Amino acid sequence: MAEKSKFVKESMVVKSELLMPNDTNPFGKLMGGRLMYWMDIAAAISAQKHSNCLAVTASVDNISFRHPIEIGGVITLTAQVTRAFKSSMEVYIEVTAENIPKKTKTLTNSAFFTFVAVDKFGNPISVPEAIPETSREKELYAGALRRRQLRLILAGRLKPNDANELKAIFDQNL
Amino acid sequence: MAEKSKFVKESMVVKSELLMPNDTNPFGKLMGGRLMYWMDIAAAISAQKHSNCLAVTASVDNISFRHPIEIGGVITLTAQVTRAFKSSMEVYIEVTAENIPKKTKTLTNSAFFTFVAVDKFGNPISVPEAIPETSREKELYAGALRRRQLRLILAGRLKPNDANELKAIFDQNL
Amino acid sequence: MAEKSKFVKESMVVKSELLMPNDTNPFGKLMGGRLMYWMDIAAAISAQKHSNCLAVTASVDNISFRHPIEIGGVITLTAQVTRAFKSSMEVYIEVTAENIPKKTKTLTNSAFFTFVAVDKFGNPISVPEAIPETSREKELYAGALRRRQLRLILAGRLKPNDANELKAIFDQNL
Amino acid sequence: MAEKSKFVKESMVVKSELLMPNDTNPFGKLMGGRLMYWMDIAAAISAQKHSNCLAVTASVDNISFRHPIEIGGVITLTAQVTRAFKSSMEVYIEVTAENIPKKTKTLTNSAFFTFVAVDKFGNPISVPEAIPETSREKELYAGALRRRQLRLILAGRLKPNDANELKAIFDQNL
Amino acid sequence: MAEKSKFVKESMVVKSELLMPNDTNPFGKLMGGRLMYWMDIAAAISAQKHSNCLAVTASVDNISFRHPIEIGGVITLTAQVTRAFKSSMEVYIEVTAENIPKKTKTLTNSAFFTFVAVDKFGNPISVPEAIPETSREKELYAGALRRRQLRLILAGRLKPNDANELKAIFDQNL
Amino acid sequence: MAEKSKFVKESMVVKSELLMPNDTNPFGKLMGGRLMYWMDIAAAISAQKHSNCLAVTASVDNISFRHPIEIGGVITLTAQVTRAFKSSMEVYIEVTAENIPKKTKTLTNSAFFTFVAVDKFGNPISVPEAIPETSREKELYAGALRRRQLRLILAGRLKPNDANELKAIFDQNL
Repeated sequence: MAEKSKFVKESMVVKSELLMPNDTNPFGKLMGGRLMYWMDIAAAISAQKHSNCLAVTASVDNISFRHPIEIGGVITLTAQVTRAFKSSMEVYIEVTAENIPKKTKTLTNSAFFTFVAVDKFGNPISVPEAIPETSREKELYAGALRRRQLRLILAGRLKPNDANELKAIFDQNL
Repeated sequence: MAEKSKFVKESMVVKSELLMPNDTNPFGKLMGGRLMYWMDIAAAISAQKHSNCLAVTASVDNISFRHPIEIGGVITLTAQVTRAFKSSMEVYIEVTAENIPKKTKTLTNSAFFTFVAVDKFGNPISVPEAIPETSREKELYAGALRRRQLRLILAGRLKPNDANELKAIFDQNL
Repeated sequence: MAEKSKFVKESMVVKSELLMPNDTNPFGKLMGGRLMYWMDIAAAISAQKHSNCLAVTASVDNISFRHPIEIGGVITLTAQVTRAFKSSMEVYIEVTAENIPKKTKTLTNSAFFTFVAVDKFGNPISVPEAIPETSREKELYAGALRRRQLRLILAGRLKPNDANELKAIFDQNL
Repeated sequence: MAEKSKFVKESMVVKSELLMPNDTNPFGKLMGGRLMYWMDIAAAISAQKHSNCLAVTASVDNISFRHPIEIGGVITLTAQVTRAFKSSMEVYIEVTAENIPKKTKTLTNSAFFTFVAVDKFGNPISVPEAIPETSREKELYAGALRRRQLRLILAGRLKPNDANELKAIFDQNL
Repeated sequence: MAEKSKFVKESMVVKSELLMPNDTNPFGKLMGGRLMYWMDIAAAISAQKHSNCLAVTASVDNISFRHPIEIGGVITLTAQVTRAFKSSMEVYIEVTAENIPKKTKTLTNSAFFTFVAVDKFGNPISVPEAIPETSREKELYAGALRRRQLRLILAGRLKPNDANELKAIFDQNL
Repeated sequence: MAEKSKFVKESMVVKSELLMPNDTNPFGKLMGGRLMYWMDIAAAISAQKHSNCLAVTASVDNISFRHPIEIGGVITLTAQVTRAFKSSMEVYIEVTAENIPKKTKTLTNSAFFTFVAVDKFGNPISVPEAIPETSREKELYAGALRRRQLRLILAGRLKPNDANELKAIFDQNL
């Protein structure tokens, strides 16, 4: 019944937000926790679009917050599935912040979330393969295996010596 | 003026929450994004307690969400600084979920956040050393260096071959 | 200093939302008030993008709510400036609702908001002209004058007999 | 079982709000979207009071926002059914803003919402007639027919030439 | 500059709310904490109206919650100053809950809050006397002195033997 | 099935909060209503922990708000059952506010809430006895009877002359 494969671009989700006072810390800068909340919503919608079913957050990889974003700023989150594994999907999210009156626009954050597709009882169900087309999509697709091995090691579910793909981390950029 | 060192237990923060409808997905289970929002608040308070100044989120490490938590459940977040590095602090957070009528209590998640202490202009300022006392605190303190190297590699700011501590990842549990 | 004209596509804003319990009425259907709140945010960002300055809501035209949207559904709001008049801009918003597990996708609402560009003291400032390119954009651009006359009449600021464009309402579709 | 008619004053609803930071834009002025959210709640309660059943938003007419309202201000929304048509009701809402320390009080907005009374399955059900008593109530009652024709034309469900009542728009104030 | 006295009816505030999912506990009944939050807002507006300046919560008396209120219900809070003392005002709040489809309407709670009028630096400033007119207003006015003595005793600021008015508690209803 | 008795310390709940803009009034100080909302959540969790079942708010005693708490401040609420009576429990809550950069920490508020343990139909069910151990716990346990009599008198359910314990109020501190 489900499709066998879908293009990754079909899972593209854009979510724009205007920074309001309660999104910020006492400096008037966006709180990390609020941004992660929005990332999770955008990524959940993307995973639903790819799998055509409900999807729950399984994990989030390392995220860094280098660029303070000011109250009144405009945030754009873009989420897209990078690769599917049986019932799980890796979703890549990019966050851009604009200060419109000052005409600045910065790529402030990126993150990888993993979602699991579930039926109405919460049991995992298999998802279509994800087909990358552009070179950027192919690069993200290729890296997904390495990131997955790192996640399994970090979760204590894979022995480092069995992580053939990940060993590349010591020779090249992740 | 600032203290030279503080015990890690002085930064201990406990935050209890009751799961309300808007915290959950259409299955009535806690959303990952909401939990990360609460983790960020608890960790921010802990970093403030250690540094005696304001602190902003610098990064969050890999978090996994294996245990669905139901609406009406009681969540307890416990945050504590594990180690300090100049102006940054690693904070460890544990999340426990209780279903009180069913008498179940589960350690559902744990996470490491990194915060940077800042003055009122947002500039980094140095923080006291963090002194571990119990064996668990010492273990978290020791692992902090390895986790920091992994973060720097993941952020592209350290070459894997220079990460002496991290190499241990391939021989032991992280 | 400000640009003389901009393409309407430069003001395009997409905002995706996942319907949560507090967004719905006792039937579990999206409340009209919540949708108007999201429309206002999306339109405000679009008006900021066109004008490169802050913008405040001046009016909203008639909106109808014919399609109930269920909790758990995915809402996509798309906003774009249609035409600019001195310091004001008309913004067109379309709302699509998807029930992903049921594979339904419906254009549920559309609306026209008017925003005024303002400086930091709240005084109106002039905005670039808006240049339509596609036939749909040109159609929206052409209709903007007629809708503006209707707004002025409804606000009691224009006599019906002076509304040359609007008289067309009695001969053709609005 | 349902009453045949009710006085419009029986549907009167008052809703007071204190403007908090998250209700405002970066200028500290009330956002249009927040006000429409409150209007929808007040109007929904009024329609429930008239119909003695649940009621869902069917449409909102043109609203203009001419008077900026500052953070800390007190908002009073007053809603009342003006006229009933089978299963639908027109609700009139007035918004007053007070700056108490400055002793100012302004009628800032007014709006007409249309609600449909529904049973527990969401099917429309007929409502009592609405009986106006005061001259202001009678004026709103009389105008309701003309506004309804305009709504049907704007929604493409009535040909302008069949809108006998609305033709008056070109000779008198709406 | 300030008025010497005002009628208590001038401070009347009405606030209607529709119970949404996040206002309720896991049984779908209104949480006590949410109701107290709304009471505080309604009472704050009432105290502002009487004093013509900002006012902060000084205390709340005993409140009981005997009547569970269901999700979807309509709540009406009515607040009015009962008596003024130098810079403080006692505000009486009544809460009525309606289940409109079931045609039930119940007086569910009442409470007395005390507010202090303050200038822009937060310093207490004197307020007009409050003049009761109806017999109910006079009764609330008369009881205010007794309730004030009880508050002062409960706060440890008055010795019970000096509370002449309060001694009546042992002979009559409070 | 239920335990016969539990130590009061087993019901201890800690809830930390960081004051955000929407928690404050126009002076940037914590609103009383927001604090009561948090107190109710903390106390509800404590009552659930003692009774091992759901619990609903029955009443709250007099609370005073003497210490303004500023935006950005850290609030710590600590709740613990003091004594159980059949199906009801008295919960004591203390609130501490810290301004971390200024190194101030103040006990700002305390309150007594009463909760009733209920089954899934909302009917009251009996709870374990609460056993105090420390001298502070014993003092709170002893005072609970006197406070309960005051509540019953204030609710008009006990005649003052039958309140033997309460008469002590006129000779000693409450």
